[in-house]
Amino acid sequence: MADNADEGRAAADVLLERLPMRDDEGDIRPEFVAEISRAIAAKDDGFLREIVAELHEADLGDLIEALETDERVSLVELTGADFDFSALNEVDDAVREEILEELEPQTVAEGVRELDSDDAVELLEALDEEDQDEILDKLPPSERDALERSLDYPENSAGRRMQTEFIAVPLDWTVGHAIDHMRESPELPERFYEIYAVDGAQHWQGAVPLDALLRSGRQVPLADLIDEDRRKVSVLDDQAEVARLFGKYNLVAAPVLDVDSRLVGVITIDDVVDVIEEEAEEDIKALGGVARDEELSDNVWTIARGRFNWLLVNLATAFLASSVLGMFEGQLEKMVALAVLAPIVASQGGNAATQTMTVAVRALATRELGASNAYRIVMREALVGLVNGIAFAVITGVAAVAWFKIPGLGVVIGLAMLCNLIAGALGGILIPMVLERFRADPAVASGTFVTTITDVVGFFSFLGIATLWFGLS
Amino acid sequence: MADNADEGRAAADVLLERLPMRDDEGDIRPEFVAEISRAIAAKDDGFLREIVAELHEADLGDLIEALETDERVSLVELTGADFDFSALNEVDDAVREEILEELEPQTVAEGVRELDSDDAVELLEALDEEDQDEILDKLPPSERDALERSLDYPENSAGRRMQTEFIAVPLDWTVGHAIDHMRESPELPERFYEIYAVDGAQHWQGAVPLDALLRSGRQVPLADLIDEDRRKVSVLDDQAEVARLFGKYNLVAAPVLDVDSRLVGVITIDDVVDVIEEEAEEDIKALGGVARDEELSDNVWTIARGRFNWLLVNLATAFLASSVLGMFEGQLEKMVALAVLAPIVASQGGNAATQTMTVAVRALATRELGASNAYRIVMREALVGLVNGIAFAVITGVAAVAWFKIPGLGVVIGLAMLCNLIAGALGGILIPMVLERFRADPAVASGTFVTTITDVVGFFSFLGIATLWFGLS
Repeated sequence: MADNADEGRAAADVLLERLPMRDDEGDIRPEFVAEISRAIAAKDDGFLREIVAELHEADLGDLIEALETDERVSLVELTGADFDFSALNEVDDAVREEILEELEPQTVAEGVRELDSDDAVELLEALDEEDQDEILDKLPPSERDALERSLDYPENSAGRRMQTEFIAVPLDWTVGHAIDHMRESPELPERFYEIYAVDGAQHWQGAVPLDALLRSGRQVPLADLIDEDRRKVSVLDDQAEVARLFGKYNLVAAPVLDVDSRLVGVITIDDVVDVIEEEAEEDIKALGGVARDEELSDNVWTIARGRFNWLLVNLATAFLASSVLGMFEGQLEKMVALAVLAPIVASQGGNAATQTMTVAVRALATRELGASNAYRIVMREALVGLVNGIAFAVITGVAAVAWFKIPGLGVVIGLAMLCNLIAGALGGILIPMVLERFRADPAVASGTFVTTITDVVGFFSFLGIATLWFGLS
Repeated sequence: MADNADEGRAAADVLLERLPMRDDEGDIRPEFVAEISRAIAAKDDGFLREIVAELHEADLGDLIEALETDERVSLVELTGADFDFSALNEVDDAVREEILEELEPQTVAEGVRELDSDDAVELLEALDEEDQDEILDKLPPSERDALERSLDYPENSAGRRMQTEFIAVPLDWTVGHAIDHMRESPELPERFYEIYAVDGAQHWQGAVPLDALLRSGRQVPLADLIDEDRRKVSVLDDQAEVARLFGKYNLVAAPVLDVDSRLVGVITIDDVVDVIEEEAEEDIKALGGVARDEELSDNVWTIARGRFNWLLVNLATAFLASSVLGMFEGQLEKMVALAVLAPIVASQGGNAATQTMTVAVRALATRELGASNAYRIVMREALVGLVNGIAFAVITGVAAVAWFKIPGLGVVIGLAMLCNLIAGALGGILIPMVLERFRADPAVASGTFVTTITDVVGFFSFLGIATLWFGLS
């Protein structure tokens, strides 16, 4: 058995040397995945233990995603204590849930014990309460209590994202005292970037970055190194708010205080980077009419159902817009060119409005657009609508007359185009602002409202002006 | 004069105490900005010097954006050496350029000297070469050379983003040796998170995080603390690639090596966070048909011109789609309901295709979608299109018959809807993948192609099927 394990380890090192997991482009090699699949099928645990021990958790996560569902669970089971459960935080939620549900609660509990508290919470929060309890019950009471406390904070709060491992020392210590403490403490956080000064009741007094410790002599009091102006967060702060703070003030870590200003945890930049990417990702999806939590690993039904709702709302608005066309049935019969050209007016307005809306939604999300510059930006967008409205009025008018040789048609479509581009600009900026004011999510809801406006205004203005100009009614 | 300065300083402290710059929501108080405007008008430099000294560079940047154009320049001039030029990196490009062009090159050069090299490069790269040279000429030769070297690297490369201030020590040193070195060196970087080991020719040997230094005894050799597996970047790597590396492997800093593997700089997480936000921001704008570099501070003409191009392309595709309607003029005249309903088929296809495209563009940007899972994702999107196609075929068919009471119209629009949702799904996933393959930017170009497909397929299938079904030709 020991021989087998040694052999496996040697074979794993040979594989990693001969055929690294990623090619030069950074993509995973299919041959590498095939070798792992083969080893899983052969239950070659010595080989697999060495592989998972050698891979970075992020790479291990990518490897797991590249495997088949049943192989994923077997890999965790075969590698036991060598498997780093933080790799499961690197995979899509759907994949993580599947694996955690298949594994024995005892196996998961042992894996969770090895994690920093923030990683453990991230892993557990994906599970429903029953599964969570089953795993928490298998942990020692002190660890269970700490995790339960974190899980009690609201979803997406700083309390959920923080790790409860940190270094806190009395404010009256010197640099030398603090360094000796770190050298002697067996249980330090895995990575840390600053230490915190607290009073006897664990109230936060200030932060000292490690580089400040290292450039100072041993006799320097910590009090001299503290930046009083340092940003701190509260357990209840929203993670998006925390991310903005980190981005704005270039933080790598921030102390998390409870409602009584006691230091209870620390948020580090790596978690914040995840939040920043997640928030941007969600905004992009929302603007594209996709559920914020849709993931690449979701199955056909989950995705189809999620997208159906948004399409249904849009179908209703499309019927609303077409009912405007329906009001002009007589005119369309008399001059079929109107039916051919109407979609152009609507679509051009929709595209211009989407441009404005995209800028507005993003500027609201990053807080660049606020009360202080709202008036200026609305005026500017209206002017942009006017300028491009005039430009496209001329272009479309000329093109329409060239195509249908109907005198006057150019003026009619030009005026409609101008109306619609101004309407689109105003809708594109005002609707997101109003939604934000009423605490609705501008990224999700703006698109539907905005294109409804440009469809209705486009059809109505074009056919209304045509009716008057050509005396069609 | 000294009295005036003291008075100003006291008044500034009182203001910051009485009326902090931000309200509880984090928005800038207009009253605060008004006080600053007043002081600028009164040339109250003592007061202003204290204000800019007390504010964080990020807050100072926001304050500058809240001021009028001429006030911005006066503020920099009045506060002189107390003004931290890194605040100018926190404002929109258009604002920064305006200020830098108004200031004397000598003033800018003095400000640049106080900055870390990465901040100095970021500030200078906004200027055209002539203005750059004018400022660089006023710097001491060694500083000028370092900045010129950085500016010679391609835009958006790691060489541009790195700072050239870092701590490099011989690999054979001990922890104690390294700590003593840091305590004695007068010129350390402003912030640092790790130190680097190099050989005699400045070749990079490895990184030691500060927390590893602090938890080890003075006798421990640095060689024992080095993580050989540490990620490093090359000066020529693209900043988006660097950002992905930081996000994936949870880095706070990475050494930057030149083509001969010599350590020439370091990239830190604060710069990477900016890159991550910028890239996401640009993808959102591109998907919305807005130029990647459009900014909230741009003027009406710049914005209108930028958006015009994209709208012009879309107008051309709208005419193309309408020419399909034009092919069926006879049918539209005979059955005007077709003209009323055709936009519904096109718009529903366009919305479904946009959903797929959004997911595809984002998954390509984050490298989640690659050769290994492309087939599975394309099949899945086609199936989602089929499922929702069937659902909306039924819904639209029923609604159309209820509205126009024309037997058979439901079948016709239902079949067209099904065709168009499948076409949209395939277009939405395949077009971004093909664009990526040909190294075009999927975020910018996909939308136009995709909606052209759904417009053309929507109109053609609906009117074509109607022609056959009702024998209209």
